[in-house]
Amino acid sequence: MLVDGVQMRPIWKVDGKEIIQVIDQRYLPHQLIFKDLETAEDTIDAIKQMVVRGAPLIGATGAYGVYLAAVNSPGRMVDEEYLRTECEKIKAARPTAVNLTWAVDRVFDAALKEPSGENRIAAVRDEAEKIVEEEAENCRMIGLHGYELIAEISRKKGGKTVNILTHCNAGWLACIEYGTATAPIYTAFEKGIDVHVWADETRPLNQGARLTAWELGKAGVKHTVITDNAGGHLMQHDMVDMVIVGTDRTTHTGDVANKIGTYLKALAAKDNNIPFYVALPSSTFDWQLTDGIAQIPIEERNPDEVRFVQGESDGKINRVLIPPAQSPAADFAFDVTPARLVTAFITERGICRPNIEDIGQLFPDKMK
Amino acid sequence: MLVDGVQMRPIWKVDGKEIIQVIDQRYLPHQLIFKDLETAEDTIDAIKQMVVRGAPLIGATGAYGVYLAAVNSPGRMVDEEYLRTECEKIKAARPTAVNLTWAVDRVFDAALKEPSGENRIAAVRDEAEKIVEEEAENCRMIGLHGYELIAEISRKKGGKTVNILTHCNAGWLACIEYGTATAPIYTAFEKGIDVHVWADETRPLNQGARLTAWELGKAGVKHTVITDNAGGHLMQHDMVDMVIVGTDRTTHTGDVANKIGTYLKALAAKDNNIPFYVALPSSTFDWQLTDGIAQIPIEERNPDEVRFVQGESDGKINRVLIPPAQSPAADFAFDVTPARLVTAFITERGICRPNIEDIGQLFPDKMK
Repeated sequence: MLVDGVQMRPIWKVDGKEIIQVIDQRYLPHQLIFKDLETAEDTIDAIKQMVVRGAPLIGATGAYGVYLAAVNSPGRMVDEEYLRTECEKIKAARPTAVNLTWAVDRVFDAALKEPSGENRIAAVRDEAEKIVEEEAENCRMIGLHGYELIAEISRKKGGKTVNILTHCNAGWLACIEYGTATAPIYTAFEKGIDVHVWADETRPLNQGARLTAWELGKAGVKHTVITDNAGGHLMQHDMVDMVIVGTDRTTHTGDVANKIGTYLKALAAKDNNIPFYVALPSSTFDWQLTDGIAQIPIEERNPDEVRFVQGESDGKINRVLIPPAQSPAADFAFDVTPARLVTAFITERGICRPNIEDIGQLFPDKMK
Repeated sequence: MLVDGVQMRPIWKVDGKEIIQVIDQRYLPHQLIFKDLETAEDTIDAIKQMVVRGAPLIGATGAYGVYLAAVNSPGRMVDEEYLRTECEKIKAARPTAVNLTWAVDRVFDAALKEPSGENRIAAVRDEAEKIVEEEAENCRMIGLHGYELIAEISRKKGGKTVNILTHCNAGWLACIEYGTATAPIYTAFEKGIDVHVWADETRPLNQGARLTAWELGKAGVKHTVITDNAGGHLMQHDMVDMVIVGTDRTTHTGDVANKIGTYLKALAAKDNNIPFYVALPSSTFDWQLTDGIAQIPIEERNPDEVRFVQGESDGKINRVLIPPAQSPAADFAFDVTPARLVTAFITERGICRPNIEDIGQLFPDKMK
């Protein structure tokens, strides 16, 4: 996507070098910093420390992590057992997003189709790049399908502003290009529809206030940052026409694990008869699990992410302590929105209801 | 309440002087600063700037504001028209909490029972102090009534920890003594029940992380600070036994205006069959309004409260900017939880269902 006139993605391979570069998303919006990843360990750290985040990007980073493991393999031989061990380590970096396992397994399988050495390295690199391009294309398609939903609301409102609430960042920073939740918004904006986004700040790490607001601002899309507490009030007062969020893992029965707090917005949308959409590439579907609340592992992160807030002051990035130093805190990263609260999924193949039958109809090749 | 061995309230009249002192709640938990209020204008500023906050405390501060207006009246004559004008100014300081109007009107009426001058000043002072003592006693009674609800859950759980979620600060800092939402918790704790509080941090001003956590910590009550996003997940996983919140205005038909985000927690409690209680002194009932969502004015505050977060770093109070400097923000201070989502009210006279009949039975003298 364009940032101040420069075409940019959140991850890319450096031309002619065996190095992956990423935007270090911890410092946005106040500093745009790029970071080199040169080993599998670097990618694991980048995923764990949330240098990169967002399910599709975590998948892409994991895929490139396998590539970096391959180029750093003893004697560049890319021995199967070595690669398998590295892949397991990468897959364990974060537990909730299913894309990580999906992408790493896919690249690993591609490697094994080649005998060894440079052939495997090339196969791994090509497959990782293929995943990246596919996810970008998936997002573009999500944008086209989701656009129809926004256009319909715009028509019903006689062209008046369509107000869309989103939680966290499911934009291009999370997804290579366009984003998942934001793709329909960008498409609608490009086609001249009057859209305005309520961006939940998304505590604890404020990906909404920091990243979604930054993305939308750079693209010129109208938006307003709100606290995570505000959405219910806005919905009660007809200030939200639709909700679109991303997801980190979606059971093929329709339950949605996404950033903590998503469930609360889904409840409020239901209570106020506002459509609640989840946008996702099919890489985010979990084709095994059937009960999201019982089965999807919810990551608990360092409580300091809750206790401290990072931002800009005097031109520098600083962090401040909010609660008493002695007070314990807890940091649950995701929650699960049950299928009954979801209006529909917006996928690269089209829109479907959140149940096993409709998902299966759209993805018969993937349903096991 | 005891703070490090010192008996403390959030507001008091200085002995022998015509000065009111308050805890400046903007600097807690990192700094305990007292502030002098010497004029009605000082009290208006203190209410607007949230030096003091919380419905009962706003009422008490308003009452003392009338006293300060009286002592500063031209020639200490306390002319009726002068006092009426001052009262209107004080009542306009914040729109949502009904206690402010209730307390100011009550003190004004007490003034008019005296002919003028020093008699009026004494009457105003006495009535303000009476309100303060009554609110403290109301909180004590709320604690006793609410205690029974906690004790019952404790019995059902065989003495295992009772987990209580609260939003914002409805503690003694907001209410003179004990608090409203926290009074049952303090009472249960004193009686030896194993309680643990999930304290919503309560963005934008973090009254939960800053004030509730500070209060509970000073009292030795187990607690954990969480983001406002976390409650739904905790409820889905049986980690919350009950919710208790305060309120800024409650219609006599049972709708509850409280800190923004309360409605989302009420929805989650309903969705998970968890009791949702609202604790309030009867001064917080609005005996006129019948439809909270349509009729209660919701204050919009300065968006910088959302854009900046204040905390401690390097031993100093600092604030950091979260979103891009150019991104607009909105700051809605309250939302309304409809009566259908409330299990019961805990009042100084006992517990009642959130409907006009049951509220009227408990407060037949106040229902108009």
